[in-house]
Amino acid sequence: MNFTGRSLVTIDDLSNGEITAVFDLADEMSQSMKEQLDVCRGKVMASLFFEPSTRTRLSFESAMHRLGGSVISAVDTKATSLAKGESIADMARVVGSYADIIVIRHPWEGSARVVADYAGVPVINAGDGGHQHPTQTLLDLYTIKKERKIIKGLKIALWGDLKYGRTVHSLIFALAKLGANIVFCPTPGFEVPNHVIQKLIAEYGGELERLAASEQSDKEKVSPLDAIYITPGSPHQLAMMPNISIQVELKRGVDALYVTRPQKERFATSEEGEGFKKYPVVDKKLLKEKEFEKTLIMHPLPRVDELACELDADPRSMYFKQAARGVPVRMALISLLLGVKEIATPDKSSPAGIDYPAYRQDLGLKCPNPRCVSVQESETKYIKPTFKIVDTNPLILRCTYCEHGFEPKYVASSHWHEGAPEYKKYHSAESHWARTIRPENLIVFNSADEAEVRGFKPSHYATVPHKRSDGQKR
Amino acid sequence: MNFTGRSLVTIDDLSNGEITAVFDLADEMSQSMKEQLDVCRGKVMASLFFEPSTRTRLSFESAMHRLGGSVISAVDTKATSLAKGESIADMARVVGSYADIIVIRHPWEGSARVVADYAGVPVINAGDGGHQHPTQTLLDLYTIKKERKIIKGLKIALWGDLKYGRTVHSLIFALAKLGANIVFCPTPGFEVPNHVIQKLIAEYGGELERLAASEQSDKEKVSPLDAIYITPGSPHQLAMMPNISIQVELKRGVDALYVTRPQKERFATSEEGEGFKKYPVVDKKLLKEKEFEKTLIMHPLPRVDELACELDADPRSMYFKQAARGVPVRMALISLLLGVKEIATPDKSSPAGIDYPAYRQDLGLKCPNPRCVSVQESETKYIKPTFKIVDTNPLILRCTYCEHGFEPKYVASSHWHEGAPEYKKYHSAESHWARTIRPENLIVFNSADEAEVRGFKPSHYATVPHKRSDGQKR
Amino acid sequence: MNFTGRSLVTIDDLSNGEITAVFDLADEMSQSMKEQLDVCRGKVMASLFFEPSTRTRLSFESAMHRLGGSVISAVDTKATSLAKGESIADMARVVGSYADIIVIRHPWEGSARVVADYAGVPVINAGDGGHQHPTQTLLDLYTIKKERKIIKGLKIALWGDLKYGRTVHSLIFALAKLGANIVFCPTPGFEVPNHVIQKLIAEYGGELERLAASEQSDKEKVSPLDAIYITPGSPHQLAMMPNISIQVELKRGVDALYVTRPQKERFATSEEGEGFKKYPVVDKKLLKEKEFEKTLIMHPLPRVDELACELDADPRSMYFKQAARGVPVRMALISLLLGVKEIATPDKSSPAGIDYPAYRQDLGLKCPNPRCVSVQESETKYIKPTFKIVDTNPLILRCTYCEHGFEPKYVASSHWHEGAPEYKKYHSAESHWARTIRPENLIVFNSADEAEVRGFKPSHYATVPHKRSDGQKR
Repeated sequence: MNFTGRSLVTIDDLSNGEITAVFDLADEMSQSMKEQLDVCRGKVMASLFFEPSTRTRLSFESAMHRLGGSVISAVDTKATSLAKGESIADMARVVGSYADIIVIRHPWEGSARVVADYAGVPVINAGDGGHQHPTQTLLDLYTIKKERKIIKGLKIALWGDLKYGRTVHSLIFALAKLGANIVFCPTPGFEVPNHVIQKLIAEYGGELERLAASEQSDKEKVSPLDAIYITPGSPHQLAMMPNISIQVELKRGVDALYVTRPQKERFATSEEGEGFKKYPVVDKKLLKEKEFEKTLIMHPLPRVDELACELDADPRSMYFKQAARGVPVRMALISLLLGVKEIATPDKSSPAGIDYPAYRQDLGLKCPNPRCVSVQESETKYIKPTFKIVDTNPLILRCTYCEHGFEPKYVASSHWHEGAPEYKKYHSAESHWARTIRPENLIVFNSADEAEVRGFKPSHYATVPHKRSDGQKR
Repeated sequence: MNFTGRSLVTIDDLSNGEITAVFDLADEMSQSMKEQLDVCRGKVMASLFFEPSTRTRLSFESAMHRLGGSVISAVDTKATSLAKGESIADMARVVGSYADIIVIRHPWEGSARVVADYAGVPVINAGDGGHQHPTQTLLDLYTIKKERKIIKGLKIALWGDLKYGRTVHSLIFALAKLGANIVFCPTPGFEVPNHVIQKLIAEYGGELERLAASEQSDKEKVSPLDAIYITPGSPHQLAMMPNISIQVELKRGVDALYVTRPQKERFATSEEGEGFKKYPVVDKKLLKEKEFEKTLIMHPLPRVDELACELDADPRSMYFKQAARGVPVRMALISLLLGVKEIATPDKSSPAGIDYPAYRQDLGLKCPNPRCVSVQESETKYIKPTFKIVDTNPLILRCTYCEHGFEPKYVASSHWHEGAPEYKKYHSAESHWARTIRPENLIVFNSADEAEVRGFKPSHYATVPHKRSDGQKR
Repeated sequence: MNFTGRSLVTIDDLSNGEITAVFDLADEMSQSMKEQLDVCRGKVMASLFFEPSTRTRLSFESAMHRLGGSVISAVDTKATSLAKGESIADMARVVGSYADIIVIRHPWEGSARVVADYAGVPVINAGDGGHQHPTQTLLDLYTIKKERKIIKGLKIALWGDLKYGRTVHSLIFALAKLGANIVFCPTPGFEVPNHVIQKLIAEYGGELERLAASEQSDKEKVSPLDAIYITPGSPHQLAMMPNISIQVELKRGVDALYVTRPQKERFATSEEGEGFKKYPVVDKKLLKEKEFEKTLIMHPLPRVDELACELDADPRSMYFKQAARGVPVRMALISLLLGVKEIATPDKSSPAGIDYPAYRQDLGLKCPNPRCVSVQESETKYIKPTFKIVDTNPLILRCTYCEHGFEPKYVASSHWHEGAPEYKKYHSAESHWARTIRPENLIVFNSADEAEVRGFKPSHYATVPHKRSDGQKR
């Protein structure tokens, strides 16, 4: 595996073996920090933070300095040429000619992908809106690995805001990839979004079992358990042992409890803030429960009130260690991407996930996520939106930039009307016709208006009752 | 004396011998700047400025670079996780895991103490609200020492805003500690606060003589003299020579005139700004007075109008030299605290001041200073306010964070009601009973409400006429 | 030619030979970047950006890091002591004692000159309002030279906002100095200001021919040509070949097309923004014209819509190369000014332009440019405005700070009333008397009020009809 010149935009850009390789190098570097001072001598890292994050920025900059490299940084949105209307692609090209590696945080989802596409140098995503924050995920995993030696088969509980916390979404995929089981304990109203669950099951296998409301009330005293994800290779796999109780499973103990801060800056409504007030705080009392006896208490920080500081001295508390470990993990990553360090990777597994068919038609389809980089005014001149067809029943497309999955309302097929314009008809995406269209012919519309603008007329199947034809559990 | 791993929060953290040691190393370093380039190689300084101060920040960062070290910096309050509600203590712990030394400026008084308590690495206070700015004090003293060889016995006049100027408060204690006499020339309305004077006399000895208004009008043409502090060891000590005239003393010449800028950003009212308009400017005309013939003109900068630029070429003007000397002084300090340089200290004097008894009762007493770090909402979960009993007549407590001294209104004794709840009574702090309470039993309240909330009832002595029982001059 | 210790405030500070020397060193450095890492070891550059410009700042900082030097930077106006009312001169002196070289961007025109006057270390102007941005000019010239080998005799077209674009003004003088011909293609309403044209002709010789409106409409399809400047040494010099057609000249091909962004942040009115909407965009269609067949497409970036991104892959497009070349050009410049590198200059030409007579009278004349540093409230205590008499018919004075040229309304002569106060009279600057006054006696006033305040009375010649007495073409 060769890291040189590659970028890290999502955690999926690294195979399991590569993740292990980063950890091995981080171990090596943290044991001999003084010897790393010439590793990046003469290299310049650009640190571009278009959203506040002193913690992450300082961690990256400290990592680069400890490797003997230099840092140029821009931290204020208003102080940048982007404020003059420049596109991210232009900015990436210019900064890529000043620096040897770019670290970027930007509120638009998918923006780091655009920077990676244009910069000409390795790019590390330090958070792109609600999308991904893969180095946070790496240091989370590194902490679990350091404390438990192996991640495969562990039971990791995620607690709090599982809706807006980008660190949590990256972490979910990484845990699944590495074979951990996941216990979801969201604040009510802050459950993991459907598109994350869909990707989790489709790409990593395994099963998700949701708890009924009655089950939850029974065990309210323990934790607000919502669902559990069982990794495919697990001996406890639900399908194999249908009678196993989630409660019993949970009682056997949780290996790590990953607490997150309410991402207030991303809340859609003020009511969401209210929802968090009723939520149980992770404190000494909670951690007296038997299942947390040997649990690693983790948090990406900053915390506000969701994690009591009375736990700071508790040996199970890992959150300050987590933060500290960000430095060697980032040192390892930077030096691998710059190609100044090499390390053997334990396996040859490919980082690639499922190779979904591409959506081929160029009829102006736009990503419906308003925070996606591909729909921003300054970017549309550069970025041609592209999509993958990740499911057909129901039909789900995924934006290749922000990775947001969505279900188009209407479909058509380029095959139907080739040479026969009178067949330019659109159908409901829920009609059975939809599943007969081959991917290379698929045309989708998010609204009837979109279809009509392109000259399509509604077929008899344009309106079907809004229920699943197959009753599939989703 | 070993500096390694220590922090510099207030100038009192350094003994006289240690101050001299810093100056000796600064001398050595400024004479061979090029040879210092490996001193801090591989070390990372975090420069955290939560209040604007380009000058101080650039001086620290230049110092670190001239030592061959690296700098990570955060300069915008809004760009920090503190804006997300994080506590200073958490921030300190995380940044302390990224950097080898932290320099912090923050508007909350006592904040640097909190950072030093939690960071796990040396911390330098670069200004915490109106509290202290000890490295400014060091470079002020260094300038005086370079120009006059010795500080002991000198006569230093302080001019302008002596109320809000934090550099002046640090300087007052340092000058007293080093045996200088201090002439106070405040803008009317901007006199040195009482708690500073109280500490000056109590901890450094010596005497303060205030000028009567009549005396002032007599000599208005010279300078708006308000009071003079005579150091204990001085041959001119007032107590020993009761007939000596302050005027005569002043006429013998001032060694340095320390001018300060009106700290408008800290003014409580707009009238305070008006007060400054009537104030004499330090200019050529003023400096023609005989007592300023050989006076060093000093200013912490930035200046606005209080110091005329016609003086810039005057050989007595030291203010640009002062600023320049900040670099070697900070180089010396950084390398000593990091333990990468050592230097013999001329004496073994301890930095500690008087060991005042601690206030022991835990009944929710809060520091009445609204800018104190210990009363900020995000910090109260971490910081348990603590106080020293620094005087008993009148009773004065001092917050250990912001060092603000205050006189509680009411007192009680835990001894009185042990086992006898009917004796839970509170008295006026001015009643003679107050002085009978032993420090370990002392309970204080800033208001009657506070006392009643804790279950105390007023005694017969709760209201005494508001005058001193002993007529003590204050 | 010795660069050591000098500043670069305007492009005129460098002779042709010195410009070539910078380019030679840039060539050398860009071919062996790794070997430059000790060139500035131990040197500190202060990067002071009082106006947003991430691009320029990162380029300078990258250059310094690639030379092995360190950077201290201040990027936010509000985060500086200037916000406390400090003068630029004070700031320069202090920062000059922290750093070995200063790079400054500031909105006040002439501010970099003030910094250079006071800092005591070399200063590089990274843009002072609408005045100059000489390193942008250097990298523009460097790109032309790299692509065309020689600049003399080339035909360079300037396109877009030629009024507010400071990069364009610097470039005009530099191109003239180096013997290039200039084709002006301004957006209507954004023509090159008169004072720039005046300086161009007066100091660099050559001729400017403006196109009549009728000629323009004829050729609208090609480009909105407004005027052409023919360099003195050119074989096509208009005076020598009066019948040559500009159109024909243009048809022979343009060597470079320099496109500029509308400098919206400097627009005086919102109508100016409207004017730009009608302006032709530089795109593939335009570049199909024969005269652009081998044209270098240049742009200082950031661009918005004036330059189509469909050109990015076109081999004529130079704008990203331009940006990239800023790094070696700035590396060369920094190391020359710091005196850590030396290079032989090909010729001994002096950088100085015409030695205009100074305006000698000290009667409170102020620069009429409201953005000039010399008229800012915080600066007037330091800066004594000075002027050069750059023309007498009509009378034009030029501010030595912002280099803004202006025509005073009234004149007087100190000679007239020496010993005869009754002759303290002022005349119209357009009267024939004005041209009889010797420079050393000249007194000018921008208004009658100014004159009367100084005790002057109107002469019979104070009002003359507002037309030129000589019908000179301007």
